[in-house]
Amino acid sequence: MKEGINASPGIAIATAHVYEKCVMEVNHGKVDDTQSEIEKFQGAITESRKQIEAIQAKAIRELGEEEAAIFGAHIMVLEDPEFVDGVEAEINENQWGADYAVKLVTDRFYLIFDQMDDPYFSARAADIKDVGNRVLLNILGIVQSDLSQLEEDVIIIADDLTPSDTAQMDKNRVKGFATNVGSRTSHTAIMARSMEIPAVLGLGDITTTVKTGDTIVVDGLNGKVIINPDHGQLENYAQENRKYLAYLKELEELKDLEAITLDGHKVELVGNIGEPNDVAGVLHNGGVGVGLYRTEFLYMNSDTMPGEEKQLAAYRSVLEAFPDGPVIIRTLDIGGDKKLPYLSLDDEMNPFLGLRAIRLCFKEVELFKIQLRAILRASVYGHAYIMFPMISSVTEVRQAKAMVSECMQELDEAGILYDKHIKIGVMIEIPAAAMTADIIAKEVDFFSIGTNDLCQYALAVDRMNQEVSYLYDTFNPGILRLIKLVTKVTAPQTGLFTGMCGEMAGDPAATILLLGLGLDEFSMSAFSIPQIKKIIRSVRYEDAKVIAETAMNLETGEEVLDYMLAEMKKLNIDIK
Amino acid sequence: MKEGINASPGIAIATAHVYEKCVMEVNHGKVDDTQSEIEKFQGAITESRKQIEAIQAKAIRELGEEEAAIFGAHIMVLEDPEFVDGVEAEINENQWGADYAVKLVTDRFYLIFDQMDDPYFSARAADIKDVGNRVLLNILGIVQSDLSQLEEDVIIIADDLTPSDTAQMDKNRVKGFATNVGSRTSHTAIMARSMEIPAVLGLGDITTTVKTGDTIVVDGLNGKVIINPDHGQLENYAQENRKYLAYLKELEELKDLEAITLDGHKVELVGNIGEPNDVAGVLHNGGVGVGLYRTEFLYMNSDTMPGEEKQLAAYRSVLEAFPDGPVIIRTLDIGGDKKLPYLSLDDEMNPFLGLRAIRLCFKEVELFKIQLRAILRASVYGHAYIMFPMISSVTEVRQAKAMVSECMQELDEAGILYDKHIKIGVMIEIPAAAMTADIIAKEVDFFSIGTNDLCQYALAVDRMNQEVSYLYDTFNPGILRLIKLVTKVTAPQTGLFTGMCGEMAGDPAATILLLGLGLDEFSMSAFSIPQIKKIIRSVRYEDAKVIAETAMNLETGEEVLDYMLAEMKKLNIDIK
Repeated sequence: MKEGINASPGIAIATAHVYEKCVMEVNHGKVDDTQSEIEKFQGAITESRKQIEAIQAKAIRELGEEEAAIFGAHIMVLEDPEFVDGVEAEINENQWGADYAVKLVTDRFYLIFDQMDDPYFSARAADIKDVGNRVLLNILGIVQSDLSQLEEDVIIIADDLTPSDTAQMDKNRVKGFATNVGSRTSHTAIMARSMEIPAVLGLGDITTTVKTGDTIVVDGLNGKVIINPDHGQLENYAQENRKYLAYLKELEELKDLEAITLDGHKVELVGNIGEPNDVAGVLHNGGVGVGLYRTEFLYMNSDTMPGEEKQLAAYRSVLEAFPDGPVIIRTLDIGGDKKLPYLSLDDEMNPFLGLRAIRLCFKEVELFKIQLRAILRASVYGHAYIMFPMISSVTEVRQAKAMVSECMQELDEAGILYDKHIKIGVMIEIPAAAMTADIIAKEVDFFSIGTNDLCQYALAVDRMNQEVSYLYDTFNPGILRLIKLVTKVTAPQTGLFTGMCGEMAGDPAATILLLGLGLDEFSMSAFSIPQIKKIIRSVRYEDAKVIAETAMNLETGEEVLDYMLAEMKKLNIDIK
Repeated sequence: MKEGINASPGIAIATAHVYEKCVMEVNHGKVDDTQSEIEKFQGAITESRKQIEAIQAKAIRELGEEEAAIFGAHIMVLEDPEFVDGVEAEINENQWGADYAVKLVTDRFYLIFDQMDDPYFSARAADIKDVGNRVLLNILGIVQSDLSQLEEDVIIIADDLTPSDTAQMDKNRVKGFATNVGSRTSHTAIMARSMEIPAVLGLGDITTTVKTGDTIVVDGLNGKVIINPDHGQLENYAQENRKYLAYLKELEELKDLEAITLDGHKVELVGNIGEPNDVAGVLHNGGVGVGLYRTEFLYMNSDTMPGEEKQLAAYRSVLEAFPDGPVIIRTLDIGGDKKLPYLSLDDEMNPFLGLRAIRLCFKEVELFKIQLRAILRASVYGHAYIMFPMISSVTEVRQAKAMVSECMQELDEAGILYDKHIKIGVMIEIPAAAMTADIIAKEVDFFSIGTNDLCQYALAVDRMNQEVSYLYDTFNPGILRLIKLVTKVTAPQTGLFTGMCGEMAGDPAATILLLGLGLDEFSMSAFSIPQIKKIIRSVRYEDAKVIAETAMNLETGEEVLDYMLAEMKKLNIDIK
């Protein structure tokens, strides 16, 4: 038995298929004939493009336009001047061979994106690696085996899986993944959840301990992999699987029910999205709206600043998908660690404490106003809310609202319609904002607590820094108390509500706690919604309040988590 | 009239002496004969050493051993292998001339130290620049004019002043400084305060607007410089100066009095120090002890890790200087942005949110234990307190205390004496620690609020980042409320007190506020002590409490500051 990260739930029992990638031998010597290396590189680009187009066509047929969109992004990498010119410069100026030049430039781009604390940027890092590897294989003339022809039902055992790997896969045959590396936010994890198959990642050496043909159990609920299980183990897992399927059916039945406690307290469950494509998942999982529309993706997936019309179209399509529900659009949250090709920003010593989000928007006024106007114009198509990130004081809220008023006046003058009563709110992700929530409350219609950043600042921990990430703890009583300072000044009946859009909102171990602290709206990745709804429907609000009060007065995050798990056990709530 | 930064108080009226440095023309071309450039460099090192030794001898005669110590550091730069080998590598490997190689290496080192948010490191940056310039002058064969021969009383007008400049100065003739660049923590500012002469820095272009021979008023109280004042202005300034001298006399008389309010509430005023040399200033200004002994300097001023004996000697000398007062020794606060030559640390994306201070000490256990044993052994010579920096939860406090117990046991086994009841406390500089002060209180004897870092984290602002430093505001009501969460769980009669060692503790505009919030101990740069004492002795504690309560409920930092200044005016308290 081996333990790893439970990245996609469920249980699968099937034959192992070890997917080994060929080792690429890259030549590190200097070359004289740079022209022929340039030609080799250009040939590989052409070949790679053909291959990607073929995969894209297959993906469109089998997965649909949305899932296949990623290969459009891959083709963009092949056309990206920073990539192409970068490689050619390494060949011409430093006399590297085409293979080493591609590896250098790929690694450089990969690192930039991989270090960003954002699932969209991590996904982009995976795309770059995938495309770079493909170009490299074509330069070296290696034909990579693929997973499109599978004779029987299998569990894929691999080091890691790229978008190209998963797109070519024979989806009917693949029942689970077990990989050496990966995390809950890696491509393999996202793909497994989207294919609704179990996955256990980060197993370290699964490719060397398992042989093709072994029988494998992938227990994506507990993050375990059993190699060649005995009869008793097989029987146990078959039973576990029946229980899990019953649980899934139960969640499915919750889809159209409200998120309401046993004693009648209603909250709102909504989704976090990055682009209009993500709406389908929210609807499918019973989300009643969008609690966080991360607009960065619009800016990032573009070589030039997205104009007002392009933004309007994107916002409108999301708003129209939710005729009854809220769509909270967060204004651009970028800077420091996340750069845009068309916006020059200085390097900073501590980008998390630097010029980003609303601070950058106050500096780049025109960029900010284009977005505000696009949101205002979109507001006639549904229930749009504007949300400002990185607010540290009421002064900034007033400054941002003044800019909204300015845009409203411009639209009035141009005779363009918009929702004059559009709701305006702020992220609470800076400790001082939580400390002064009562003051800021007078200026806004809602708060949304961003626990990812709030925890980073309140604990002085960069959670991407492996040396200190052990200190990142959303259950630290200091964090719970900061949350309480926010919820205690809001109540839906006053027209002022508090939501949460950090990862904590989708953490089932935190649900009762957050409910008891007085959270009105939970916004999360779409796939978490059914489970969180089930928990809310299994508890009394009056009990949740007592539990939260007790938790806030425990001494450590560890004690809080243990206490919450114990209370859930008492209430017979099972976390998958 | 020109306005700048009031870096040292007082008023001086004298003749301008414009101190112009020669322009150094550095050759950027590649050289063939690298050997002769190496020789040029080595000759310049020898010459520079002779010059520095001469300045050092003069400084010892005129200023004493302590003030002259800086030139020992200069000689160390000349001997530093990183400097010498760095320059030789630039010559040998990149074929730069000796002059450009020295400039490159000097600039590189300067930048590293200058970017650190710490007065000691900034001072080191100034030293490096000073030494680098001297070597460069010697390579170029330029003889720099100096300020050792002055015919009359003068105000020095310069771009900036280096330690070499000020050491050679005829101190009897120099009555004030006015410079183009500089800040309150730059060498020129520190020197002016130590010479007790007024200085206005950061004037931008004072060297081009003033001619040698002009009559100049330097108003270090208000940061103004008057060029060729008229009769009325001269009379006004003479009167201002009399008032200021009377004020100084009044402060001087406070030296041996207690820091006690009009209605009998006593607090403790103590000094921040970086090394034993700083003790004299604390005693001279009437500080009753040390509220923050920054031990980083011990580690930084050394090429190898300072051993237990070396540390013991330093701690002992400080403890013996305060037979009755506390000496709070902060354990090593280093990492990320502040590196040590003998400790290899990874670069981090956000060093302020990374592996530093107590986090690093938990990783480098032996380093930590050497320091703890040295402090424990020193504790028999006075009232030593141990303080841990960067605490984010009670778990870390327990972990640190367990290590103290371990060291105590080792000393017991070795039969070495120490204070078994040594007081242990923590810095409150991470928001979550302030939020859970009631929990941490059960484990400690005292808190010391580090407002510099607390503000940075609570506002998510790197105050060294010029793009966002405008958001750094110690008067933000969120900060005041965090402070109140700490002071409300402590009271000296319970044996638990709250101090403050951030810059806010020495800010006269904050004194009444902090007093009213319930601060028990104020620790600051020595020269601020008399002024803060005067304010405390001018107010009633009961009034301060009411004022603080009102301030905490204002909406913005700006309103708080305005309110505090207005209240001080009502109380007839004058800030210099």
